[in-house]
Amino acid sequence: MSEQLTVVMAQINPVVGDIDGNVDLIIDSARRAKSEQQADIVVFPEMTLTGYPPEDLLFREALYEQVKKALSSICEQVQDVVLVLGYPMMDELGERFNMAAWIENGQIQASYIKQNLPNYSVFDEKRYFAASEQPCVVEYKGVRFGLLICEDIWKPSPASQSVKAGADILLSLNASPFSQEKHQDRIQVVNRRVSEVKRPVIYVNQVGGQDELVFDGGSFATCAEGDVQVQGGEFGSELIPVQVLKQADSVVILPGEKQPLYQDEARIYQALVTGVKDYVEKNGFGGVVLGLSGGIDSALTLALAVDALGADKVEAVMMPFRYTADISIEDAEKEANTLGVKYHSIPIESVYAASESALADRFQGYEEDVTEENMQARIRGMLLMSISNKTHKLVLATSNKSEVAVGYSTLYGDMVGGFSPLKDVPKTWVYRLAVYRNRDGEVIPERVITRAPSAELRPDQKDQDSLPDYEVLDNVIQAFVEEDKSPAQIVEAFGYDEAEVRRVVGMITRNEYKRRQAAPGVKISPRAFGRDRRYPITSRYSE
Amino acid sequence: MSEQLTVVMAQINPVVGDIDGNVDLIIDSARRAKSEQQADIVVFPEMTLTGYPPEDLLFREALYEQVKKALSSICEQVQDVVLVLGYPMMDELGERFNMAAWIENGQIQASYIKQNLPNYSVFDEKRYFAASEQPCVVEYKGVRFGLLICEDIWKPSPASQSVKAGADILLSLNASPFSQEKHQDRIQVVNRRVSEVKRPVIYVNQVGGQDELVFDGGSFATCAEGDVQVQGGEFGSELIPVQVLKQADSVVILPGEKQPLYQDEARIYQALVTGVKDYVEKNGFGGVVLGLSGGIDSALTLALAVDALGADKVEAVMMPFRYTADISIEDAEKEANTLGVKYHSIPIESVYAASESALADRFQGYEEDVTEENMQARIRGMLLMSISNKTHKLVLATSNKSEVAVGYSTLYGDMVGGFSPLKDVPKTWVYRLAVYRNRDGEVIPERVITRAPSAELRPDQKDQDSLPDYEVLDNVIQAFVEEDKSPAQIVEAFGYDEAEVRRVVGMITRNEYKRRQAAPGVKISPRAFGRDRRYPITSRYSE
Repeated sequence: MSEQLTVVMAQINPVVGDIDGNVDLIIDSARRAKSEQQADIVVFPEMTLTGYPPEDLLFREALYEQVKKALSSICEQVQDVVLVLGYPMMDELGERFNMAAWIENGQIQASYIKQNLPNYSVFDEKRYFAASEQPCVVEYKGVRFGLLICEDIWKPSPASQSVKAGADILLSLNASPFSQEKHQDRIQVVNRRVSEVKRPVIYVNQVGGQDELVFDGGSFATCAEGDVQVQGGEFGSELIPVQVLKQADSVVILPGEKQPLYQDEARIYQALVTGVKDYVEKNGFGGVVLGLSGGIDSALTLALAVDALGADKVEAVMMPFRYTADISIEDAEKEANTLGVKYHSIPIESVYAASESALADRFQGYEEDVTEENMQARIRGMLLMSISNKTHKLVLATSNKSEVAVGYSTLYGDMVGGFSPLKDVPKTWVYRLAVYRNRDGEVIPERVITRAPSAELRPDQKDQDSLPDYEVLDNVIQAFVEEDKSPAQIVEAFGYDEAEVRRVVGMITRNEYKRRQAAPGVKISPRAFGRDRRYPITSRYSE
Repeated sequence: MSEQLTVVMAQINPVVGDIDGNVDLIIDSARRAKSEQQADIVVFPEMTLTGYPPEDLLFREALYEQVKKALSSICEQVQDVVLVLGYPMMDELGERFNMAAWIENGQIQASYIKQNLPNYSVFDEKRYFAASEQPCVVEYKGVRFGLLICEDIWKPSPASQSVKAGADILLSLNASPFSQEKHQDRIQVVNRRVSEVKRPVIYVNQVGGQDELVFDGGSFATCAEGDVQVQGGEFGSELIPVQVLKQADSVVILPGEKQPLYQDEARIYQALVTGVKDYVEKNGFGGVVLGLSGGIDSALTLALAVDALGADKVEAVMMPFRYTADISIEDAEKEANTLGVKYHSIPIESVYAASESALADRFQGYEEDVTEENMQARIRGMLLMSISNKTHKLVLATSNKSEVAVGYSTLYGDMVGGFSPLKDVPKTWVYRLAVYRNRDGEVIPERVITRAPSAELRPDQKDQDSLPDYEVLDNVIQAFVEEDKSPAQIVEAFGYDEAEVRRVVGMITRNEYKRRQAAPGVKISPRAFGRDRRYPITSRYSE
């Protein structure tokens, strides 16, 4: 006898803390999976009910009451299809667990506690949860499903233990955040498990942005030989059916739809769009405003914002000063017009003059220096924030990772903003993404891409007056920040000038205080600034 | 035969990452303890070599090379006294450990690995370290010393295990950060251990500020009956001798000097002074500048700054506007004169007018609202930052915990600053500390303390126009933020109006985005904003 089951991967976008909203989303997804795809089983991501990561909301007792009610409500409302979903639980002793439940016929028939709790990178799960060492295998229509949660599949033991307990197939519930190579990493690690346990795996991931994280989905199912049989799309909510066939001596996954995956620039771009869109929408902003300088960072940020939210939700402000080149004004206006966003120009000359006068007495005897440059940036920040306050639009900051790393940005100036889309995008990638965005026609004026980058805060200023070439800078940043290489190792690897490498590393180290006050932005690299990299401000460490 | 040993508690103030500097400090302390106090053994705090907490510096391989060299250098230079000190270690597999070494005759004779790794509150030790389960007991002149590191003593097992392995006395190396009742907690927990194992305990803690943390020292030694025999001072570096007597069947600690401890306001005040002083000095700033408004927050911040750094290192700036009361100007000037700090006044009227004009077109059709209030605050922030840039002084922000909680402050306005001394001080405690500071004569003008608080951002504005009484507000904040009470529980506990409680809780929840961009400040409560409380910005959770 052979039985065929339809397991639907519910690749959804829950909102952190929105338990009622997430219940609705789960029920709606379950009903659609049942009616449109004849689902027998619908598998949701890790911590479906609360969204991921709920962080210290997990310390609130009332959260667990809400989760219990939500589970009851789901059990009551969905009885014609099996649901597998994730949630946090607290026991009588106050210990908390990251759980998955098998809900069948309106009852929790089985539940599983996560075994491997990630406590590295952006993860703090040992802050919240206790781990279990028990597998959970559930038989349904002759097929024995082994449950796993996210990190469990990254180490051999939970999968092999589940198979020892009889699992024919593994269901993995995930909230696995995006970074550039993450999807390939996941496929690889699942392959490793599959080669160990010779069982098919159904891997369900969530989508959507949550503060600094983007979840890219990309849910997939592999057969026991490791080939991907079904591949869901990236970044979008989807219900992806997987056909599971019970044969005499094994359970197999039948080949299904394999959606194409984004590559390279397209993938990063889509991650950024998702991050911006969800930050703005989940936080209830009606739109965004940003300062357009005629430079490439703000040009790319504007394009991203429009792609994320639509032109009608985006406002661009040019704030020219005496050092602003005519071509900057022309290019800014041109892009704003091409994209069809609200655009206006607010010259800062008079505010600057008034500020200079106000400080004249105090500054007597001091030379002009970087102070005056920062003043321009801070006046712009103040004007943008005023527009934000008045119109309830979120300010997008435009700094890229290279600038954030070395502090080439003004605190309370161009760092102003509620969200910072390019925060984890190195300058060299800003160029690549700009070229990518222009693939179907010029949106970002060509001249913005080709001219030498400048902050235009003093006459004839160029970024490369005070920074190394961006290619060099980005290599040093990647090696030092993302790979923990020492200056000596960097010099050896790239052959760069040692003094230059040490100067860059010194800037990175010294500017932690600025980063601590920076807006969140989308993590796309293996190590982003923010929760992913926790450095002391006060530190005399050097290598 | 009875042998008497002098164990010196080296209550020092290491700098995070300054391995060379910390080596010098260790060697100097050891020599002084030997020559001035005839020390046999000198015990240092946890992670002496790197300072605590080094955070993600622990991921850098070169750190471990530096630590090894530092240990060799110490072994070479100090051979006439036993040293017990802490440091991180990485093994061949790349696993990291939080260690303590027993250094005798210029050699590491024994070493201990921390067993309990705290991963709650501000601590992330499971992010970095693997734990051990082995005790370490070292015999010296007939006395068997059991080593413990910090969190180890907060649970029964490591101490009892050490005693089972033969320990006569326990040496506890700590980096235990300050909060209001922490010293009492430590005494209590050590008492509990002592009652279990019937052995004396020598508890050594570090002092000094490190970003958001202050370490208060207060090192102490208790006899096997639990009485404190020797009590070191709080907040200051000290070498504190403890006489250990080996008797026929036990080891006892002889009564020694018991220094008085700070209480209540004096203790909090001293913690804040330590935090400000070390942040400024360890980060190499020549001084600080702050905006003096005539209100109590900036008045207290000014007094703290002067007590921490000396009047010559402190500059106060009054930035009056049309809503600034005359008495605000008078009181600000009076306090600045009393304290003898550099003081000047920079009216913001002209910068405000220029900003208003610049925005006039864009704001056409909009009513005046909170935007204009924020503009005043942001202009002040910009002027302060300009002075900071020009004079290389750190800006101190003046927001208190009550404001930080409900977002009653302007992002990039009065939140501007590199350090925020009152960030964890509720408004009701700001008053108490102001009264305390005036105990020996009026420093903060009496009128500043007695008048109704106002941000003076519009005519006749009072804080209580938009906030509940500060006593109510602070109770709600404490219950919700520090104790995780739900609004319903708060209403029940205090009998407050439910709508009012929910309004405050809503403000706290909504303003996470502001706090994420706030300067660090000294943690004095059981749960401070910052690393101690990790809430998502994007969240729809409510109770």
